[in-house]
Amino acid sequence: MTGGSSPDQATLLARAAWSRMVEPGDAVAGALVATLGPVDALAWARHTAQGPAALGGVPVPEELRGMTGATSARLARAAARWAPRLSELDPRRELRSVERLGGHLLVPEDPAWPVALDDLGLTAPLCLWVRGSAPVEQVLARAVAVIGARACTAYGEHVTAQMCAEAVREGWTVVSGGAYGIDAVAHRVALAVEGRTVAFLAGGVDRLYPAGNARLLEAVLAGGGLVVSEVPPGSVPSRTRFLQRNRLIAAVGRATLVVEAAWRSGALNTAGHAAALLRPVGAVPGPVTSASSAGCHRLLREGAAVCVTDGPELLELLGASGDHVPEADGGPVLPQDGLSPDQRRLLDALPLRRPADPESLARAAGLAVPEVLSALGGLELRGLAVRQEGRWRRGTPGGTRHG
Amino acid sequence: MTGGSSPDQATLLARAAWSRMVEPGDAVAGALVATLGPVDALAWARHTAQGPAALGGVPVPEELRGMTGATSARLARAAARWAPRLSELDPRRELRSVERLGGHLLVPEDPAWPVALDDLGLTAPLCLWVRGSAPVEQVLARAVAVIGARACTAYGEHVTAQMCAEAVREGWTVVSGGAYGIDAVAHRVALAVEGRTVAFLAGGVDRLYPAGNARLLEAVLAGGGLVVSEVPPGSVPSRTRFLQRNRLIAAVGRATLVVEAAWRSGALNTAGHAAALLRPVGAVPGPVTSASSAGCHRLLREGAAVCVTDGPELLELLGASGDHVPEADGGPVLPQDGLSPDQRRLLDALPLRRPADPESLARAAGLAVPEVLSALGGLELRGLAVRQEGRWRRGTPGGTRHG
Repeated sequence: MTGGSSPDQATLLARAAWSRMVEPGDAVAGALVATLGPVDALAWARHTAQGPAALGGVPVPEELRGMTGATSARLARAAARWAPRLSELDPRRELRSVERLGGHLLVPEDPAWPVALDDLGLTAPLCLWVRGSAPVEQVLARAVAVIGARACTAYGEHVTAQMCAEAVREGWTVVSGGAYGIDAVAHRVALAVEGRTVAFLAGGVDRLYPAGNARLLEAVLAGGGLVVSEVPPGSVPSRTRFLQRNRLIAAVGRATLVVEAAWRSGALNTAGHAAALLRPVGAVPGPVTSASSAGCHRLLREGAAVCVTDGPELLELLGASGDHVPEADGGPVLPQDGLSPDQRRLLDALPLRRPADPESLARAAGLAVPEVLSALGGLELRGLAVRQEGRWRRGTPGGTRHG
Repeated sequence: MTGGSSPDQATLLARAAWSRMVEPGDAVAGALVATLGPVDALAWARHTAQGPAALGGVPVPEELRGMTGATSARLARAAARWAPRLSELDPRRELRSVERLGGHLLVPEDPAWPVALDDLGLTAPLCLWVRGSAPVEQVLARAVAVIGARACTAYGEHVTAQMCAEAVREGWTVVSGGAYGIDAVAHRVALAVEGRTVAFLAGGVDRLYPAGNARLLEAVLAGGGLVVSEVPPGSVPSRTRFLQRNRLIAAVGRATLVVEAAWRSGALNTAGHAAALLRPVGAVPGPVTSASSAGCHRLLREGAAVCVTDGPELLELLGASGDHVPEADGGPVLPQDGLSPDQRRLLDALPLRRPADPESLARAAGLAVPEVLSALGGLELRGLAVRQEGRWRRGTPGGTRHG
């Protein structure tokens, strides 16, 4: 637990129970807990389940009357949904379980709670089960979500490595989902360059899923990173939990980068969450012949993502001020840069070898003689025009190409 | 000449003279010719050149007084610019020259003039020198501009071939610049699939530039296509003429596709012209590791182009109605498509082998028992759930993957 004004034990136990009782992203549970507090909300759920839990027959707590959407019927349906799991709640055991793993339960009442998650509103996680000893709010203060296809290509791995390394060098934490493919490369590269990385899992943090990435996730922990989940230890990952887990990755990232993604991909779901949260989304283009880039191109086509091609562009996406505007790629400054239209025309007309007089240059360039003389002055200064006995030819500092 | 109400010889000769006298895109010449007509405008230019052509001392024709920008000083500067070439005008010779090549001079007064060029306003070409016997307005009625890097890659060639072939199959004419690389592939593929293709040159149509593409450009003519320029026979291509030529390609294309382009590329200039003309611009993404795609990615990043990855998307860019919306790439319809959230959750919770009763399914899925029973009905209909003596397991029609 991060010190200071730690939340009391009753709050911890109640939120642990809630995270077992409801599926991630349950907005009714979110509203109930937000209104009554986790302890009273849990008491209400227990009370409701004891009575005849017929649909529509559930008393609405005084505090919830008139709340948006929290109508009696909706609450009743939610209570009926939660009831089957009430009998098997054992939050003490789950708290002990995460503590045995060197972890802890982080709740919104704790000052270490990452405030970015609050942007999820009623679907914010009820708590986070955290493995790793690093201070959560500090690790996640400047985080970039890097996600993508499990079935990635060598190209995707290469690009992920480049961009993650650059982000880490600039002090960013790399957040991903611990999956095979792009996720794994993102975590691995962050570790390799001694950066911080956080994996959000869809199942409990006691089961490092997928099994093939267990050693990688252990390395994340050993490297000062975190493994986090909103479902308690012992929970299995499921498709819906994966999709809900994606909203956490999108919420903690200052921006989300999709490196490779198939046309149908969980990464697009994460990108959708990020967009809904008004976080910038970047997509890395790839060959149109690669199915692994189809999802990225889809995001670009739909205007749902910005095209990101290198580290500086990723940093620009993250809003890291003007010194990351990627001008480095603009190529060298050429002698003919910044010429006036007349100078350009005249440069085209200047013979390479046999010098010409201003009158014939005027005809060749389609300029008046005074314009020719004026333009020649500018070109001479740049070394682009050379005078020989009142006639002119082209200078040598750079050739021009057509096109 | 395309029959009907052909323009008179004086108009042809005057416009031919104008195209020799001024450089492409000269808006003052455009304004003067539009106002006085080509014959009177030429007479005015001659008259002005005979007098003492001191800057500012040129009489403004009555018709031009009060015209936007066509102030006395501006006209005087323009007249001085044109004067050096007045002495060498010989439009009859140039007309004979293009006719010897089997071509003709096309002027805006001709009904065969491609009206799309009028969108260029005062910088519209003063005439077009055309080689090829096909009716110009017909060939250009449905045209797509396909352009890109001279230093293209095998990837760029492949994509260009795919997309041009598809556009031709749908009846589109492929317009490009006759250059090496993407341009050449675009022309070549259009010919290979027996489509029409038009090359706009920066120099005269008598010199098929670049020399290495002369045979290709002859094949374009032999295949019923056109080679077109706004500068008269004998004109050399120059950098400024290339840049001005690009505006013609952008104007005649219903849309412009940039397949590969370096960070600095003439293709980006064409794309800029297309955007200024409110024509759709498409850019084909490629590997971020390829310098030949950097210009395309730049267009995508700047929001100056739509991401185009295949033929159907190109046709969509061209505005070819809804039957080209690329749903073909959406992948197969899976049995789990369109499931409700409850059904998805329940599907995740359904055991693969040992059937479970509704109560334990409710706990596993986080649903109420009535919700489980309702969701089971839908899953059973799709074959995704199988009942065995009041218990349920998962059906076989399709696996689910996590992520």
